[in-house]
Amino acid sequence: MAVNLPLPIPANLKPVAGIELGYAEAGVRKANRKDLLVLKLAPSASVAGVFTKNRFCAAPVQVCKIHLEKLKDGSAPIRALVINTGNANAGTGDLGLANANASCAALAELLQCDASQILPFSTGVILEQLPVDRIKAGMPQAIANLKADNWYNAAEAIMTTDTQPKAASRTVTIDGKSVTLTGISKGAGMIKPNMATMLGFLAIDAKVAQPVLEQMVKEAADKSFNCITIDGDTSTNDSFILIATGAGALEVDSVASTAYAELSAAVTAISQELAQMIVRDGEGATKFMTITVEEGASADECRQIAYSIGHSPLVKTAFYASDPNLGRILAAIGYAGIDDLDVSKLNLYLDDVWVAKNGGRNPDYKEEDGQRIMKQSEITIRVRLARGTAAATIWTCDLSHDYVSINADYRS
Amino acid sequence: MAVNLPLPIPANLKPVAGIELGYAEAGVRKANRKDLLVLKLAPSASVAGVFTKNRFCAAPVQVCKIHLEKLKDGSAPIRALVINTGNANAGTGDLGLANANASCAALAELLQCDASQILPFSTGVILEQLPVDRIKAGMPQAIANLKADNWYNAAEAIMTTDTQPKAASRTVTIDGKSVTLTGISKGAGMIKPNMATMLGFLAIDAKVAQPVLEQMVKEAADKSFNCITIDGDTSTNDSFILIATGAGALEVDSVASTAYAELSAAVTAISQELAQMIVRDGEGATKFMTITVEEGASADECRQIAYSIGHSPLVKTAFYASDPNLGRILAAIGYAGIDDLDVSKLNLYLDDVWVAKNGGRNPDYKEEDGQRIMKQSEITIRVRLARGTAAATIWTCDLSHDYVSINADYRS
Repeated sequence: MAVNLPLPIPANLKPVAGIELGYAEAGVRKANRKDLLVLKLAPSASVAGVFTKNRFCAAPVQVCKIHLEKLKDGSAPIRALVINTGNANAGTGDLGLANANASCAALAELLQCDASQILPFSTGVILEQLPVDRIKAGMPQAIANLKADNWYNAAEAIMTTDTQPKAASRTVTIDGKSVTLTGISKGAGMIKPNMATMLGFLAIDAKVAQPVLEQMVKEAADKSFNCITIDGDTSTNDSFILIATGAGALEVDSVASTAYAELSAAVTAISQELAQMIVRDGEGATKFMTITVEEGASADECRQIAYSIGHSPLVKTAFYASDPNLGRILAAIGYAGIDDLDVSKLNLYLDDVWVAKNGGRNPDYKEEDGQRIMKQSEITIRVRLARGTAAATIWTCDLSHDYVSINADYRS
Repeated sequence: MAVNLPLPIPANLKPVAGIELGYAEAGVRKANRKDLLVLKLAPSASVAGVFTKNRFCAAPVQVCKIHLEKLKDGSAPIRALVINTGNANAGTGDLGLANANASCAALAELLQCDASQILPFSTGVILEQLPVDRIKAGMPQAIANLKADNWYNAAEAIMTTDTQPKAASRTVTIDGKSVTLTGISKGAGMIKPNMATMLGFLAIDAKVAQPVLEQMVKEAADKSFNCITIDGDTSTNDSFILIATGAGALEVDSVASTAYAELSAAVTAISQELAQMIVRDGEGATKFMTITVEEGASADECRQIAYSIGHSPLVKTAFYASDPNLGRILAAIGYAGIDDLDVSKLNLYLDDVWVAKNGGRNPDYKEEDGQRIMKQSEITIRVRLARGTAAATIWTCDLSHDYVSINADYRS
């Protein structure tokens, strides 16, 4: 059950000039489902990405990093992305790496470019070899239906345990020039910053210099995909890719320009929307929670406390139950690892309700006020540390029976 | 549902000379249940403890620390422990501290000693004030039924979401002298080292010098109660107390003695049994998992990886489902935060089944072998890092539907 997650409407997803999308039913793991996606880029496109920090990073992630790194040596531009679901190609050793490279080579042959101009992505079960022959066999079908107006199908093609496709689209005007931004993402478990079992692909039709785009994707990820958590499990395959097709009128060649600032803000905003969609569709989610920690000595300690709250199974089950058992939040703050935290100065709010004051129950707090907020589907937990001026915000969801069901049954 | 947790048999729980136990139904939170326990100690007893490291440590924990610290200044010995369930007296500020002290004062008056000779313990809901009047009113009843042969009732009196009482008892012979060890513990959620929503009380009838006992309780806790995790939530109230009544024949006054080594080993062994009982009765547990990480560069990194596996909801739900989706274990190892971990040397075993070899799927691994092990109720996950000679072991359980039910319904 997703929390206030609007089903994207195909007609609202604007094509981005310079990019075409095509999908196939390749039967990677199961038959009769879209499980292969190809994104074909104009030669003018620049591409940058951020990837999981999991030491067991998947073979496709390793290949992506190598191919993107080559751009710095003046290698030919990225021409296509290939994404499969059903198999993560992670924990697969040298054969996994060879399979990821084989996928790239196969697509490169079809598109008449070099294998290093392809970026591969996989999501699904870990520790099983990629059925690369089925993926290769599906490629011609995906190429045959390549078109610019295919974002909704693309969003469907990358789903795993997601209950619905995730996509967002908008147009902004910068320096008097129109820029279209359209993106898709998928979750829905194993979500933690750096990053998640998540894939995110965002395209804009501006022309953005490679180093500038690299800065922009990092800024956007740090304020969006790196601020979400569902279960604290960081996946082996997380990737967020920003594509600037260069087919539009706007050009950005410096991070110091006002155009950069405006475009980066627009990219961050739509990235937040795509990231929050992943939380809204978190496995078994019934509540969407925003956790804000303020007045910290550093943003890092604020984030540490926010994640301690956001990962606590006891907090998450209390929210699932709409039970204002809010001492569990204090406990999670207490074990966050901030050794010199003076809890006697700490204040806790649930939306506008002041729950804990100076480390203890607020004498004016009434259980029915907490209860009223807990029944909402969207709740903000706000902590004031009274130690400084730093702050951090993350987004998460509750822990329900369905989370257990989904993850206990995932492979069956 | 507990995993292979034998119901203690009252007749098997040996009295420990120098300690009497009495309980009451004080109605702290609910009527008609044992919720107050008093342990009365001989004047010859020494007492030492380890406590939660949660910054929101509960009022009784703060009071315990102060009273135990006073022993170092030659203060009069601890004469009694008072334990209530139903309310944790945590997140309760100055009033909570006053209430914990009031409990001590009330019991001290009844036992004709000083309030600083009492150690208070509470477990239950956080952020609500302790109903200290009800606790005081229950004390005479607890004192009236004080007796040496009351360990089973004591084990019942400290239960919260535990499905059954936890107790262990044995006799060892050291230096030709018999020593009786009897202990009780309670869980069952919010279990993580340093420490857990756990209380553990272990009594021995040896005479042990105060500083020696302090060393012994730390050693035992580090190898038992600090090696268990259920949900990663470290509670505000965790306490493990070792009482040496001094009523028996054995005397230990130096950590350098062989008697110390033998007694400490016996104390550690029974502490492990009591700690593992907590995991076996973990909220909703259906599997008991031992996680051993070997060949690490340090014990700390082994523990870090073991906990990363043990806390992963995806790993825990896979075990609940008996689904050998073992890539989830690799993912948890990968995000444990060991930045220079070379996963290409890593080996993973499930009991005697070699699952991952040199970072990838072992070519000889067969899914049916993994499936066979996953169906067991007790499973060992063994990781070899090939980085050194250090090792660590922790114990944990799976994550089931019942965990969610128990924690979503806890207060209702």
